[in-house]
Amino acid sequence: MKYPLPIEKLMRALQRLPGVGRRTAERYAFDLALDWEKEELDLLQGALSDAKEHLTTCPICGALKDGQECFFCQDTRRRKDLLAIVATAREVFALEATGEYRGQYHVLGSLLSPLDGRGDERLRMAPLFSRLQKGEIKEVVFALDSTLEGDATALFLKEQLEPFSLSISRLAFGIPVGSSLEYVDGGTLARAFLGRATF
Amino acid sequence: MKYPLPIEKLMRALQRLPGVGRRTAERYAFDLALDWEKEELDLLQGALSDAKEHLTTCPICGALKDGQECFFCQDTRRRKDLLAIVATAREVFALEATGEYRGQYHVLGSLLSPLDGRGDERLRMAPLFSRLQKGEIKEVVFALDSTLEGDATALFLKEQLEPFSLSISRLAFGIPVGSSLEYVDGGTLARAFLGRATF
Repeated sequence: MKYPLPIEKLMRALQRLPGVGRRTAERYAFDLALDWEKEELDLLQGALSDAKEHLTTCPICGALKDGQECFFCQDTRRRKDLLAIVATAREVFALEATGEYRGQYHVLGSLLSPLDGRGDERLRMAPLFSRLQKGEIKEVVFALDSTLEGDATALFLKEQLEPFSLSISRLAFGIPVGSSLEYVDGGTLARAFLGRATF
Repeated sequence: MKYPLPIEKLMRALQRLPGVGRRTAERYAFDLALDWEKEELDLLQGALSDAKEHLTTCPICGALKDGQECFFCQDTRRRKDLLAIVATAREVFALEATGEYRGQYHVLGSLLSPLDGRGDERLRMAPLFSRLQKGEIKEVVFALDSTLEGDATALFLKEQLEPFSLSISRLAFGIPVGSSLEYVDGGTLARAFLGRATF
């Protein structure tokens, strides 16, 4: 059984989206092909073109920017002495959305992956060093995944940042807010116990 | 906190996809903007254009077609006396993928929705009647959702097809293959019991 060629092509393209398998791609493709108005499709296509043409990354922090100035680096109301190191440009927005962080960002672009042999050549280390050499940054927070890759990257960064006299911290590990202990895995529970705080 | 405008526009467009909320749209948008090569984006955009330009529905059965001839109506190896009535063009492919069905299709285009006031003016009834009037079709299977809408549509169709002397059936209700009874809801279990077959 074959799909009409335009549907097949659309499905193949959509399957490149993260977490999208053949069934979800099929659902999206039929919806796009049958239910979307021409104007809606035009909006999507315009947005795709714009994203590729107008989005750039800031050469300093590595976050996304769409204009001349970096939204984060140029904001004078943000703390200049505090730097959060994140893996991807998307995580900048996740941290920003918490409303708790008002410092600078540095996007690494990737995490080390000892198992996949992904090494530090993929990390934006040179721009990080040149920022730290200016001496303005005093405190660094590693806002990295709590995975093997995140741990490896945190260890590597800690070593690399040794020469600078910085206060280094990493996001706390513990029980996700709103979870029942019953559903928390043993590793998380152990980390939560080790990190227990006076109440 | 604001996203760069191209990301925001892309997210808004992607949120029109079925089942895609703001978080999934964000994930897709960042992936598209940051990780897709220009060639991959071009493929997606080309597929979107093609889908809208080249896909049409067969005026007889209502299934999708991309060429001159309908893949289903023109296939002489398919049974001419058996007709499956489905709600959407996508469901044709779902049924086709089972490999069990080799008859004709009729796409209604919608289901009746008594609660939303969606009536029979949305159903492709006229082309259905003209097909049945030819007298070639002897057996009709309702391949409809087992929902309130599917039930209402099945009852409506049964009434409408009364004047034609047809053998009418509906897909069996019962326990999904591979499920444990523990996770099957009471309504399904009751239908499965009523439809029990000699073993």
